[in-house]
Amino acid sequence: MSVKKALMIIVDGMGDRIVKRYNKTPLEIAEIPNMDRMAKEGLCGLMSPLGLGKRCGSDTAIMSILGYDPYKYYTGRGPLEAAGCGINIDDALCFRCNYASVDRNLVLLSRTADQFNAPKELEDEINKISLPVEFEFRNSLGYRCVLVLRNKNKILSDDISDIYAHEGERVGSIVPKKKFKAWMDLTYVASEDSNAVFTAKVLNDFLRKSNEVLNNHPINIERAVKGEIKANYILPRGGGFKPKMELFYDKYGLKAACISAIGLVKGIGVLTGMEVLKVENATGYIDTDLIAKARSAILALEKNDFCILHIEGTDEVSHDKDAEKKIKMLEKVDKMIAYLMENLKDTLIVVLADHTTSCDYGDHTADPAPFVMWNGDFVPDRVEKFCEREIYKGGLHRIEGKDVMPIILDQINKATKFGT
Amino acid sequence: MSVKKALMIIVDGMGDRIVKRYNKTPLEIAEIPNMDRMAKEGLCGLMSPLGLGKRCGSDTAIMSILGYDPYKYYTGRGPLEAAGCGINIDDALCFRCNYASVDRNLVLLSRTADQFNAPKELEDEINKISLPVEFEFRNSLGYRCVLVLRNKNKILSDDISDIYAHEGERVGSIVPKKKFKAWMDLTYVASEDSNAVFTAKVLNDFLRKSNEVLNNHPINIERAVKGEIKANYILPRGGGFKPKMELFYDKYGLKAACISAIGLVKGIGVLTGMEVLKVENATGYIDTDLIAKARSAILALEKNDFCILHIEGTDEVSHDKDAEKKIKMLEKVDKMIAYLMENLKDTLIVVLADHTTSCDYGDHTADPAPFVMWNGDFVPDRVEKFCEREIYKGGLHRIEGKDVMPIILDQINKATKFGT
Repeated sequence: MSVKKALMIIVDGMGDRIVKRYNKTPLEIAEIPNMDRMAKEGLCGLMSPLGLGKRCGSDTAIMSILGYDPYKYYTGRGPLEAAGCGINIDDALCFRCNYASVDRNLVLLSRTADQFNAPKELEDEINKISLPVEFEFRNSLGYRCVLVLRNKNKILSDDISDIYAHEGERVGSIVPKKKFKAWMDLTYVASEDSNAVFTAKVLNDFLRKSNEVLNNHPINIERAVKGEIKANYILPRGGGFKPKMELFYDKYGLKAACISAIGLVKGIGVLTGMEVLKVENATGYIDTDLIAKARSAILALEKNDFCILHIEGTDEVSHDKDAEKKIKMLEKVDKMIAYLMENLKDTLIVVLADHTTSCDYGDHTADPAPFVMWNGDFVPDRVEKFCEREIYKGGLHRIEGKDVMPIILDQINKATKFGT
Repeated sequence: MSVKKALMIIVDGMGDRIVKRYNKTPLEIAEIPNMDRMAKEGLCGLMSPLGLGKRCGSDTAIMSILGYDPYKYYTGRGPLEAAGCGINIDDALCFRCNYASVDRNLVLLSRTADQFNAPKELEDEINKISLPVEFEFRNSLGYRCVLVLRNKNKILSDDISDIYAHEGERVGSIVPKKKFKAWMDLTYVASEDSNAVFTAKVLNDFLRKSNEVLNNHPINIERAVKGEIKANYILPRGGGFKPKMELFYDKYGLKAACISAIGLVKGIGVLTGMEVLKVENATGYIDTDLIAKARSAILALEKNDFCILHIEGTDEVSHDKDAEKKIKMLEKVDKMIAYLMENLKDTLIVVLADHTTSCDYGDHTADPAPFVMWNGDFVPDRVEKFCEREIYKGGLHRIEGKDVMPIILDQINKATKFGT
């Protein structure tokens, strides 16, 4: 009899290209006996969330993997991050932001203010700023934060540019820009829409005022005294309104839980009505407590049918071009998987990457991401090891994000038959 | 030079999962040297008729394999079965039915009245019932039968529920139900449409009156005396109007023939304008005469370009969870294939399953179905044996139902070139 529940472990940016100085991929180098066992006993494939050759973010990838076509639903990362911070985003224009560092000429010194860990008192100060619309500013994780503008009088627009922000150059302003075709197209044309003009003005106002508040705050004065750069600028990005996503339960009939340290994944959980769990010492980095997350997943699956367990650290160190840390993190993930294989009975375990992140290139690429399912009811393939090269012979061959949930539903016997 | 004709052998539910007590699939266990030879010399792939993870019936699967998108054309199994019985279904609401057995409280004793083999005289008695619309009732094969309501005054509707019928429970009534979104969605909402209300009333009337006729018929009196359960209830399902399918010849320029024991496949043949052949001793079960069917196919291909040869027994015994019988039936199919390989020259032979039916689970699953083509003009792959695990390395990789006819047309040189 087939299993009835499923755990989906999303190892962010796990797949990779060949790391030049090793002539191997991190998955080929790492000691990961448990993932290898999964590959040997399970069914593997390579997944391109949005189709071959399409580079995607974690947000669009995870949406597509859960069956929410991002070309239809995605409105930017802002609303996902904001929802993930627990903010009500109904009828609000939402931005994910960074605490950054600029000099007195607004030249960007660091996009993260040197991995600033923002204290609550800065959040409170910024919320005291006066703007022509109601707003809410919240710290998220580390240097990450969110800004939500309330659209009570329907005078805000998401037809605005992102901010130009490259280290060593002066930060730009936000300008009204008509989003051309669809947001995901990077081509913009100027907008003269009065709501867009107003929205850009409000944001630029916020940037100026928050810069002033932060520059003069004792925390930053003290940092300057210690010779550290100030965390004195808020960089907003990914502005958008709340996406209209169907509830996960209504879509699949599955009670679901979501475990992640980072806002965007928690946001997808919140917006699809999952139970979003908080795990102590889940940091979104390689120092995270994966066994705590695994324990949380095991508990979650006692009362849910489906659980996402998302791990961010692999992607973070890939962006940092640090293959050694990625290999170590993969080995840490493997130990968590051993714990889950041991302690989760009667559950399909799916391990996948949302996308591939190249350590040499330092960003996401469109190479398909490794996928394995284990402990289901299927004919295993002949893959012997969990790595990109071996999974080329995986029995699932190549799949897309949209295929993942149907495959899981079939495995846990929740698929309906079309026809007789 | 490539072959000009093609035979498509549809082995219903041939694919399987691992049968637990053997730790192998039926195809891995069966002695099938001829299919193995086909796999070795031919080109293999795994087919998901409606896409990965989608469970389908034989009706929707075979429609998709022949290039008729079931999401567009399928209106239920009723009209296919009725057309397959040779009934004119123009402007008629059609149901596939079972002769079933109920006790005096209408508790369902057997969905098939213990595999009742219905005699013509019962059909005649039921046709004498008086209903407010013209109708036609016909025995099909064994316990299977069809009911067709003529929609002369356009007062019938297919917005009605199936009948609730679970053994050990009282059978339900048919109620007017608006089919929600698309019919394939299992969620219905109540309908107050007067045609739907009327149609449900006519059907419930039919159920009551046919129950009365059958209960008192000498055949059933005699069965009761012998201690057998009565075949005293008609269970209608899959109600729908005639699907508007383009003729196969108009679509592909191929004269086609169809060989099957079962109504739904014959119905697809009838509705697409194929020559539907009758074969003596084709029973739709494992006792069928496959050599007779093979001879019929060879004859059919003398005057046709394309022939479907459908074999039902493999699916029947999979639903019965009888892996031993499935293995035996596969070996019987293999002997038929030997006969065809020997006697059919200059013909592409395609052997495929419409879907996978798991012997352990007893129903269709979404695992992809094995596919091989042989005696064509292509570069063979390195598959050595005809079984699910080996076909993971098939050169066609994974295909969908819609890909099958284009591949065949290319092989028999009937494909047109797009561009120059």
